[in-house]
Amino acid sequence: MEIPYKIYLDESDLPRAWYNLRADMKNKPAPLLDPATHEVMTAEKLGAVFCDELVKQELDNDTRYIPIPDEIRDFYKMYRPAPLVRAYCLEKKLGTPAKIYYKFEGNNTSGSHKLNSAIAQAYYAKKQGLRGVTTETGAGQWGTALSMACAYLELDCLVYMVKCSYEQKPFRREVMRTYGAKVTPSPSDTTAIGRKILAEHPGTSGSLGCAISEAVEAATTRDGYRYVLGSVLNQVMLHQSIIGLETKTAMDKYGVKPDIIIGCAGGGSNLGGLIAPFMGEKLRGEADYRFVAVEPASCPSLTRGVYAYDFCDTGEVCPLAKMYTLGAGFIPSANHAGGLRYHGMSSTLSQLYHDGYLDAVSVEQTSVFEAAVQFARVEGILPAPESSHAIKVAMDEAIRCRETGEEKTILFGLTGTGYFDMYAYQRYNDGEMSDYVPTDEELAASFAKLPKID
Amino acid sequence: MEIPYKIYLDESDLPRAWYNLRADMKNKPAPLLDPATHEVMTAEKLGAVFCDELVKQELDNDTRYIPIPDEIRDFYKMYRPAPLVRAYCLEKKLGTPAKIYYKFEGNNTSGSHKLNSAIAQAYYAKKQGLRGVTTETGAGQWGTALSMACAYLELDCLVYMVKCSYEQKPFRREVMRTYGAKVTPSPSDTTAIGRKILAEHPGTSGSLGCAISEAVEAATTRDGYRYVLGSVLNQVMLHQSIIGLETKTAMDKYGVKPDIIIGCAGGGSNLGGLIAPFMGEKLRGEADYRFVAVEPASCPSLTRGVYAYDFCDTGEVCPLAKMYTLGAGFIPSANHAGGLRYHGMSSTLSQLYHDGYLDAVSVEQTSVFEAAVQFARVEGILPAPESSHAIKVAMDEAIRCRETGEEKTILFGLTGTGYFDMYAYQRYNDGEMSDYVPTDEELAASFAKLPKID
Repeated sequence: MEIPYKIYLDESDLPRAWYNLRADMKNKPAPLLDPATHEVMTAEKLGAVFCDELVKQELDNDTRYIPIPDEIRDFYKMYRPAPLVRAYCLEKKLGTPAKIYYKFEGNNTSGSHKLNSAIAQAYYAKKQGLRGVTTETGAGQWGTALSMACAYLELDCLVYMVKCSYEQKPFRREVMRTYGAKVTPSPSDTTAIGRKILAEHPGTSGSLGCAISEAVEAATTRDGYRYVLGSVLNQVMLHQSIIGLETKTAMDKYGVKPDIIIGCAGGGSNLGGLIAPFMGEKLRGEADYRFVAVEPASCPSLTRGVYAYDFCDTGEVCPLAKMYTLGAGFIPSANHAGGLRYHGMSSTLSQLYHDGYLDAVSVEQTSVFEAAVQFARVEGILPAPESSHAIKVAMDEAIRCRETGEEKTILFGLTGTGYFDMYAYQRYNDGEMSDYVPTDEELAASFAKLPKID
Repeated sequence: MEIPYKIYLDESDLPRAWYNLRADMKNKPAPLLDPATHEVMTAEKLGAVFCDELVKQELDNDTRYIPIPDEIRDFYKMYRPAPLVRAYCLEKKLGTPAKIYYKFEGNNTSGSHKLNSAIAQAYYAKKQGLRGVTTETGAGQWGTALSMACAYLELDCLVYMVKCSYEQKPFRREVMRTYGAKVTPSPSDTTAIGRKILAEHPGTSGSLGCAISEAVEAATTRDGYRYVLGSVLNQVMLHQSIIGLETKTAMDKYGVKPDIIIGCAGGGSNLGGLIAPFMGEKLRGEADYRFVAVEPASCPSLTRGVYAYDFCDTGEVCPLAKMYTLGAGFIPSANHAGGLRYHGMSSTLSQLYHDGYLDAVSVEQTSVFEAAVQFARVEGILPAPESSHAIKVAMDEAIRCRETGEEKTILFGLTGTGYFDMYAYQRYNDGEMSDYVPTDEELAASFAKLPKID
């Protein structure tokens, strides 16, 4: 059967349930701990911060399929099923016998896969009768996605945006405002933790960990609000499983089986979502695939981090998670262009990596932008810097196939578009971009500050 | 048959030929004239400026279907067939019995329908053995599209970008540079006409008419270059017929017949492309539809212009075209946010309007942005300001149906996304946007300068 450039599934093929990979894991991800007592977080405690239904999903390590409510499926239909693209033009350009596919999640205004979880989280908040949700955003995709979902459901949306992004990406901010969100640069004087950080670090340009603390405080000190998060958590990876489910359906339809599946990894939700059903087969012994997480050399949590309980935020108000981490105090060089700046990694992916089911590589950003530009010129799509980490490694694999003659099938996740990252592209175009890799000493100093958990 | 949210045609449904609406027009559009002698432009004369094959297409008023070369179809497959969307969410929000459809052309990095003609024009330039092409761009969609097409074909691309856009939209410029184009702010000192304009109007922020003059000079004074244009011309409307052909195929597949077809109109190519096959049926007496061109009240060429021969550019180096025009010297208020700033209108659409086959309305920009924001919040897509002119009128029609109870089927063209127009959205969000409508006296003064052609 001839494979088209773009495989679009029918709306009737849109999955009716998310796939919960944890159900097929022998070693479950470690539970969240109370940051004060170090006791396992209960549903009740989590419910003070998160929506009830999302707490259930967060803690459910057993139910394999969780139905997608019709209201969420209807929203999905506005931009899903997302296309699976055969990169014929890239293959030709590279002169490779490899067959390259990518799942493109950028076909929506948020510009990324983030919308898949944003609508789910907003929906459960609405269903619980809440007035609104709070969150943080760094690069801005998550904040945009949540704003869109809240606008659709007429839910209040408070976004704490890392100050340097707020200033460097005014247009991201405007998209959120256009969707009705209230956007505050973080740290701000609207929260106690924000005021404390401002007092201790006057003139700071903020960090994701700090914005998380502010958003959590804003949720827990307001009536009818809960906090929502765009990555790292189990629930997010659950919602993102729709990426992998659609991909698998599309590939099965054409009898294609990937040899290697590649995704960029910041908090891990897009990669986790893309690989979920394939990893499930691997865990159940039904099939084998090679999985590769790609992270920036400037923020290498899997490749150079330690596997330990750590804080998720600077303010230490969030639960502790066991994960590969660079230490909650680690702040990647401001030089780094894209997202993927989080110090930790999803507990689920961390466990899989620890158990040897997943490989990880790190790449430097100038090589990532080089790959991004090559890709854009032949495939048309201008990729987000985050997504371009996966492009870089997919291209490397395809070039290796040219050398060995192997006809591997390579699948990668193209998580989003770079329309709001042109400042970074400009620096690359002007030859002003450089690389940064933390030293062993820097990392050791950061690891020394990890909380001591037995 | 239940109609999905998005109708995606198969790749095999991608049209194999463009439809040349002129073949079905009894009154053909008036021919281009030599700006110096006022004689009808010959193919030979046009060939000094345009690619040979494109000159043929420009002058061909008789061939109904012109085959799309396989190389262009392959490129189209990277982003086409474009989806026809049923606006279920908008219908629900408006509480209208009307059925609203839109053809979405924003699913590509150029952010608009412009790519449909860019790849065709670049292809014919490449086939002719040329080294490169030159063009102008205002809002930036056309320049981006041409850059993408030239990158794909490895063709040199020189873009003269209206200076105020160059400065206000640095990220548009960076997208073009990322695709390898050389972008020059216009007026510039790289051309004789640019130097002349700079000397006469020091500190000018430029205009589309001026950038056209520079791009034409750049093409005609270089070996192996030709000039290409993103709208107005017959050839462009021919390429854009793919929009209407796909739309008609998708609607026919589901047995849907539009009552009213709405599009924004700057130079006219997207509207002309969308309506082409429907208008063909109307001209041949096979079916009836109402067609509506929507233009900004600040640049109302159809609704307030005159039907006359006029210059297409400020430098008066391009052929004269008979069209509805505000006068080549008319410059819309800088206050106006989007594209649609061109003083004239496609000769083909002008003739159809003159003959009563097409209606036109003008709308003010604050009402356009109001509609755009409403649309974005329920349909997800953040529309370009240009496209939002069509949204505004489609919503007005749907609201009228709510009042009358009519179940009209409304189709409009959603030509692109607004990701690079956030400065305009910001002004709207901040309540700083205002409207501008030229006075009768201003227009009369502009009309007085029209060239006198017998």
